[in-house]
Amino acid sequence: MRTLTSRVTVRRLPERAVYDRAVIDAILDEALICHVGFVHDGHPFVIPTIHGRDGDRLYLHGSSASRMLRELGRGIPVCITVTLLDGIVLARSAFHHSMNYRSVVVLGTADEVRDRNEQLRALEVISEHVIPGRWAEVRHPNERELRQTRILRIGLDEASAKIRSGGPKDDEGDLALPVWGGVFPVQLVARAPLPDDHVPTQVGLPEYLRHHRLRADGDA
Amino acid sequence: MRTLTSRVTVRRLPERAVYDRAVIDAILDEALICHVGFVHDGHPFVIPTIHGRDGDRLYLHGSSASRMLRELGRGIPVCITVTLLDGIVLARSAFHHSMNYRSVVVLGTADEVRDRNEQLRALEVISEHVIPGRWAEVRHPNERELRQTRILRIGLDEASAKIRSGGPKDDEGDLALPVWGGVFPVQLVARAPLPDDHVPTQVGLPEYLRHHRLRADGDA
Repeated sequence: MRTLTSRVTVRRLPERAVYDRAVIDAILDEALICHVGFVHDGHPFVIPTIHGRDGDRLYLHGSSASRMLRELGRGIPVCITVTLLDGIVLARSAFHHSMNYRSVVVLGTADEVRDRNEQLRALEVISEHVIPGRWAEVRHPNERELRQTRILRIGLDEASAKIRSGGPKDDEGDLALPVWGGVFPVQLVARAPLPDDHVPTQVGLPEYLRHHRLRADGDA
Repeated sequence: MRTLTSRVTVRRLPERAVYDRAVIDAILDEALICHVGFVHDGHPFVIPTIHGRDGDRLYLHGSSASRMLRELGRGIPVCITVTLLDGIVLARSAFHHSMNYRSVVVLGTADEVRDRNEQLRALEVISEHVIPGRWAEVRHPNERELRQTRILRIGLDEASAKIRSGGPKDDEGDLALPVWGGVFPVQLVARAPLPDDHVPTQVGLPEYLRHHRLRADGDA
């Protein structure tokens, strides 16, 4: 399950590179969104979107009218990057400031998913990626909605992760400076859910929102 | 200060598009990182990095050895995208689920900054973008460090924002379903700073960390 093509080999700071699929998968699964890069008329475009992973397959979805999805579905090269920010690293020198992060870069080409069963499976995977437990409760897509949706599949053959963690790496000569050094941890968290005006009174807050992985602060 | 070239015109869901520079600037300034897209050997690459804005100029920086910065410095086309996630939007149908977000896409070409004064200004802008107040305290870059750093400047002439906010837009016929609907707000927050082992005892936690914009939860 390891892949190492020259294209996907991390060049800068290779000591931060990880090619272990379990690590790559965990980063892909934790990130709520990805950034999709593609080339149009020779110019790069980078668009944020939601993804979902099913084993070795990464799924994207969106409107059938989306230019990005239409072009990607033709099999042009794509780069999908996800980034989790873990902290700001404060060194004594401006030069050694850094970020702690976990990122994944996936290179490849996309295929459009045309099989109805795989389409539904992909939509379930994306939904369960964002909010595990939600799919069983909501109204599933009908034929009209499926026709309005384009779904793309990208393999994870060319994927690499890059990770920085830990404190600042100051120059020895700077360590005695009277400057605070360390890590300022950052984290994406979910706040208390806000129901809209149409939730029937007998419908309480679902357990899967109460215990979502982003509810680290416990303000249920 | 409004720009509207055909390349940067938002095509999908144009009602979400914003070309107001004040809105664009606020999103760029709030986001800790951006995703930089460029083309190499015909393939798109998307790499996360830190940015800083000084008026109409966006600055990127990194190692002189960085392939991405070296290539971008030659003036090849670039796309810089920042995305702020504000919430997960839960509709009664799978189809109408969405995300609340604020994103900016900047298209253009980069110039390498070679003037020492602008280099130092750019590094200050990037530092103050991430942690306002920090620059005045740390050891500034010396000549050797500046030689190891490449700084790029990109204009904001071709920039657009895209924003979604508010609750789900369900089909009328789904509103009576016994399914929770609303917004699950998400937010990037900073946790209590973690000093390393070299902070002198007389150096306390800086005020600029205590009151950083990401310290929304007050756990100082």
